Amino acid sequence: MELNLPKFESVFSIDCVIFGFEAGELKILLIERNEDPYKDWLALPGYIVKQDESLDDAAERILYEFTGLRGLHMEQFHTFGDVDRHPQGRVITVAYYALLRLNGQKELKPLNPIAKKAFWHPVNDLPKLGFDHTEIFKTGFNKIRRRLGYQPIAFELLPEKFTLTQLQSLYEAILNKKLDKRNFRKKMLSYGFLKELDEKQKGVSYRAAKLYKFDRRKYSKIFQNDLNLDK
Amino acid sequence: MELNLPKFESVFSIDCVIFGFEAGELKILLIERNEDPYKDWLALPGYIVKQDESLDDAAERILYEFTGLRGLHMEQFHTFGDVDRHPQGRVITVAYYALLRLNGQKELKPLNPIAKKAFWHPVNDLPKLGFDHTEIFKTGFNKIRRRLGYQPIAFELLPEKFTLTQLQSLYEAILNKKLDKRNFRKKMLSYGFLKELDEKQKGVSYRAAKLYKFDRRKYSKIFQNDLNLDK
Repeated sequence: MELNLPKFESVFSIDCVIFGFEAGELKILLIERNEDPYKDWLALPGYIVKQDESLDDAAERILYEFTGLRGLHMEQFHTFGDVDRHPQGRVITVAYYALLRLNGQKELKPLNPIAKKAFWHPVNDLPKLGFDHTEIFKTGFNKIRRRLGYQPIAFELLPEKFTLTQLQSLYEAILNKKLDKRNFRKKMLSYGFLKELDEKQKGVSYRAAKLYKFDRRKYSKIFQNDLNLDK
Repeated sequence: MELNLPKFESVFSIDCVIFGFEAGELKILLIERNEDPYKDWLALPGYIVKQDESLDDAAERILYEFTGLRGLHMEQFHTFGDVDRHPQGRVITVAYYALLRLNGQKELKPLNPIAKKAFWHPVNDLPKLGFDHTEIFKTGFNKIRRRLGYQPIAFELLPEKFTLTQLQSLYEAILNKKLDKRNFRKKMLSYGFLKELDEKQKGVSYRAAKLYKFDRRKYSKIFQNDLNLDK
């Protein structure tokens, strides 16, 4: 139906909470802003949605323009709309998250001059962020913390083959606490979604540990459909 | 920090997917619009957010104005922002859901003349809705369907004391399929979060069934913290 009505103009933005895991450390992607009046502010990669692009398209474009990363599986997790959250007026922002296994070679190179640089920063020692970005980060972090219990979050952050020590480091980083090694292993192996490989770690000077793979099919049988009685 | 910048003007809306359960039937709350050019359109209760109210406040106000219901626990579940979703221009909408046990006496009475009436409609036989509201409803329905596996969705829709037959009807309504009675009971009771009461149904002409209560503490021990190893 074509309606002849006064047209609305809207302003809203996307902010991206991108988690990366590397060498036992959980990190988040930040940018340093380059333009007045936000010069030198540290912030999540984020900016205004164009009038002619969908939210998902905007999220992908903005992340790429501000960090050089693309092709990530990004998922919307919350929309922030407090009245005073932006100094230029009412701007609500749709927050997306993604999980990324880092391996040293992901190049960060902003294309848009609004971002002076993009960099990974450990989640445990986060600097003060501009706007309400600290709150957005915290909400995203709580989200993945909760999802850790019923979604294969951990296995998106680990390499395809991993040791139980690596798995435990990741859980400890996300939950921000030490876990008992024996209990952790016992519990993790009891589920049946970890497949022990006939292979060990390579290139380590200490005693090489066994490698495991994640069985996605078994995992979803156990967690997604449990109370749904869908088996 | 006070910044002297050109101010943005924004347009965005809230839409509410409110589920109710009564007598074995899952329903959703709809309104009939009253104003041109949307006269007679069936839609989810929803409207534009004011410049000076937060998203959560807007959700509560709009639901109240358009249906007369208030005090519900509403939760944001997704933001819809396709370029052409609204005939008047770019409007993104933040969708909220809530769950409600109906018992016949919830009065629906719109205060805002934009809603001609508000009514409960079975989810299984949904009429064509205006805008992209059918998609919003489906996304919300899928959300609660998935959450049924790890959140106490079912127990927010049931009366405090319920029979296993009522519980099964609710699962069947949400999952939209018949479940085997014996398996369902066996599985549900095996978790340990259903507390059998020393009481039976009253006022039924057939053989009165046992009543159960939901043990929220046990449920969250089992489901929220499982893989989180938080016990």
